[in-house]
Formats: sequence, C-alpha cells, structure tokens
Amino acid sequence: MRFAKGHGTENDFVIVPDPEGRIDLTPRRVAALCNRYTGIGADGVLRVVRGEDAEWFMDYRNADGSVAEMCGNGLRVFARYLVDHGLAAPGRFDVATRAGLRTVELGATGHVTADMGPAQVLGISTAGIGDRRVPGLHVATGNPHLACVVESPVEAFDLSRAPDVDAVRFPEGVNVEVIRMVGRRSVEMRVHERGVGTTSSCGTGVVASAVAAAQTEGENRGEWEVRVPGGSLTVILTAESTYLRGPAVIIAEGETCL
Amino acid sequence: MRFAKGHGTENDFVIVPDPEGRIDLTPRRVAALCNRYTGIGADGVLRVVRGEDAEWFMDYRNADGSVAEMCGNGLRVFARYLVDHGLAAPGRFDVATRAGLRTVELGATGHVTADMGPAQVLGISTAGIGDRRVPGLHVATGNPHLACVVESPVEAFDLSRAPDVDAVRFPEGVNVEVIRMVGRRSVEMRVHERGVGTTSSCGTGVVASAVAAAQTEGENRGEWEVRVPGGSLTVILTAESTYLRGPAVIIAEGETCL
Repeated sequence: MRFAKGHGTENDFVIVPDPEGRIDLTPRRVAALCNRYTGIGADGVLRVVRGEDAEWFMDYRNADGSVAEMCGNGLRVFARYLVDHGLAAPGRFDVATRAGLRTVELGATGHVTADMGPAQVLGISTAGIGDRRVPGLHVATGNPHLACVVESPVEAFDLSRAPDVDAVRFPEGVNVEVIRMVGRRSVEMRVHERGVGTTSSCGTGVVASAVAAAQTEGENRGEWEVRVPGGSLTVILTAESTYLRGPAVIIAEGETCL
Repeated sequence: MRFAKGHGTENDFVIVPDPEGRIDLTPRRVAALCNRYTGIGADGVLRVVRGEDAEWFMDYRNADGSVAEMCGNGLRVFARYLVDHGLAAPGRFDVATRAGLRTVELGATGHVTADMGPAQVLGISTAGIGDRRVPGLHVATGNPHLACVVESPVEAFDLSRAPDVDAVRFPEGVNVEVIRMVGRRSVEMRVHERGVGTTSSCGTGVVASAVAAAQTEGENRGEWEVRVPGGSLTVILTAESTYLRGPAVIIAEGETCL
C-alpha cells in the first residue's frame, strides 16, 4: 500500500492515497500504521478518497482507529498533499470532511490556510491544573475547549494529567488550553487534549486560544499569532468564520506492508 | 533519499541504503530522520555501506545523532534488510560493525539470530528502584548492565526514573534490568536504558538478563526465553559466546526529503 507522511506544527499524519475507495481501512490497520514503534507512526491517518460534494474527501481517523469528524492540522496537511501531487491546483478549493465542506487556500509551496468555521463562545468555567485553579472560556470549535488565559509562563502549568473540570458542563470531557499574552495579538499556548494528553499542537485548540485571547483584549477580529510547542500558527478571526494558517509539509513517501 | 523502516521487538530503525558511502549523515540529519513527529521516527539509524572486513558495514547511529558501537536488535534488523533486498543470501554471514565482525544467521523469512559476543560477569552490586533496593549482577555485553533478578512481577518496579546505582562502579551510568523467572529457562524483563529511560526492548539487556537468570539457577548454558514489553526473544548461551534470536521485520520503504 502506498503512503506518505506529513505534519503541521508536529501534528503528524500517515496519508493513504485511495482515489477509488478500495482500501479497507479497519481500525486495527489504522492503529498498526500509527504505532510509533512497529508502524509508520502518526497522530492519525488521512485517507484521500474522491468525494461527492467536493473533488476530494478527507477520511480522517484517530491513531486508535476511531473515526473523527475534523482535524484542523490534518486538513492543512491533506491540502498540501493534494497540491504536491497535482491532485488539486494551488489556490483556494473545498475539501469534503465529515464536518461538511471546508475551504483551504495554499500556494505551490509554503503555508496552508484552512477555514475552521465559526467559533462559539459558550460561557466561562474553571480548570484545576496541578495545585492551581484558573478561569477559562468555554469555546466550541468543532470540539469543546476550555481556553484559560493566564499570567504566568505556560510552562509553569502541569498538564501531564487531565485538568479538573466541571463534569456537568463537560460530560464528555474537554480540551484545556493555558494561554499567555506575549505581545500584541501574540500568545503562547500549551494544551491537554482529552483522551490523549499534552500534544505539540492542536488546530481547534489554537483557534479557541485566539478567540479567548481576543476576548481578554476586548477584541473579536484580526490576525493572532499562537505559539505552540510544535511551532507557530496564525489564526484569522472574521465576522463569519475562523481561519488557521501555518506550515504543513510532506516529509516521506513510500510503500508499506502493513 | 531512499529509506526503509524496520523493527525488532519494537526497537525500531530507519535504514538508509548507501552502498558507495556517498550520503553525508550528519548528527542533525540523523536526529531529523529519527524525530517521531517531524521525521520518520526511530530509535536509531542503520546506514548500509560496503565494508572492508565483510561485504556490509553497519553504520549505527543513536536517535540523537551520536555514533554507537553496536546494537543487538539493530544488527538483526540490518541482516533482515540485507536478505530481503538480495544484498546477502539467507544463511550465515558476517556483518562489520564498530565493535568488530558479528555473525548473523537467518532464513529468507522469519527470525534472525545475532552473535552478541561473550558476556563478562563482573560481580554484584545493588540498584535503588523506587523505594526498594535490590541486588543485581554486573554484566558487560558490549555495554554495562546491572541485571537484577527479583521475586515480584516486573511491572511492580518504577523504572520511570533512573535507578540509584553505585557511582564508583558505574562512573558512566548503567542499564538496569529487573528480571523475574516465569518458567523453566523463561523470564520476563523490563529495562531502564541509561540516558534513554524505559524501552520496549534492549538487545544487550536481554542477553545480560539471560546470563543473570542462568547464574541464579546455577546454570551457564542453554536457551533462555526473555519476554520484554516489545515481544519475546531467545538467548542462547554457549561456552564461547551469546546469541540473540527473535523477530526482525521491514515494514515500509520509500523516499524522504529529510
């Protein structure tokens, strides 16, 4: 089976080209591909299949083999793969996902921008992180986030364990971000993804962080820089939607017997 | 650049074919290849170069880019790559390494056996692991090991931190194994590799564990099964040498821009 590997700010993916939809991508096979020691190793799989509402459908799977609706960094890597392989022309085009059509924009090389859809601000809550309790903004960006703007450096927070959150508000858990302003419309952020732990980057969490930082500053528009352990991303907030822009690269191609 | 990825009991390697020795494998490039998020991801790199004392030389590098003399599981994966690619005929042949010539034996498919050289038993010492202190055997199998045969299940020991060992005896640190007999000539083992942490498998540690288990049983010959988190290996102890036998597979091939 042909595959490629790519990443966006260290959020990495095995890409499986399958235009005609002939590959039986069982959960077991996804998990085998994503195993970092016995497989290729990745946070998820992006299967490239011809779509109905758009030319290409992004069939995204989590590393454990489960199906997921959307993945912001995955969408950017998917778009980079399409353009690198001549499957889409550089510029702006739609990709079909389980969360509906998503628009991406990219050149022949360089950064990739993905329309992440509008973010919903749903109120405030608190997170217990280590021996601290901090307030945060409940933001929905495809999945739930508790985005906590803090005063201390984000490294000071122990995110190795799941933060303590309001189980009534978040019955299925929540991704928790700690965010600190480091400049004009610029923040640093670290994230604990529910069911995963700390990660180098999380596309929807980056967007939620920009929304929370903007609200803290009394704004709700403009370009925000969000620095994560895996690199730096730009979030563009408009009246209609949110956009995630940053690097996405394909680093290897080949064949696997998995 | 062409590459392959393979593993032996979850000890994984990026293999770089370079018969004529033309590839400049800088430490930085090795680290980029081995990065599990932005690269292919592996515990080390095996460069396949034509040798002088044997047809092939195994140029082994650690994931951080540093040069290492030998790696038992790496040697087995290296041999599997050679046979799978018709670069060596199945059977028994020598591989040149920085630790000298090493003999391997394998069929067209299946397990690979590597001659690990004689093990030296250098005395006894103790290791502080979590809140326990246990006795162990100081065994040299290319690198130093403190192989501790214990009575409790090996999962009961906290190897997340480096065990406390005699700094006079081990000025450059030591790999520490906890080993428990689970049957006739059969043990389970977990290892803390110095400078790395817990790993799924460690070839030289597996050999050291068999040597320590044999000594505990009043033996010093024969076939020993060693179960590690990454799988099961067989160690053969003879009067002249030690041998490591087990699975080694190539799971992917391709090209990388790294």
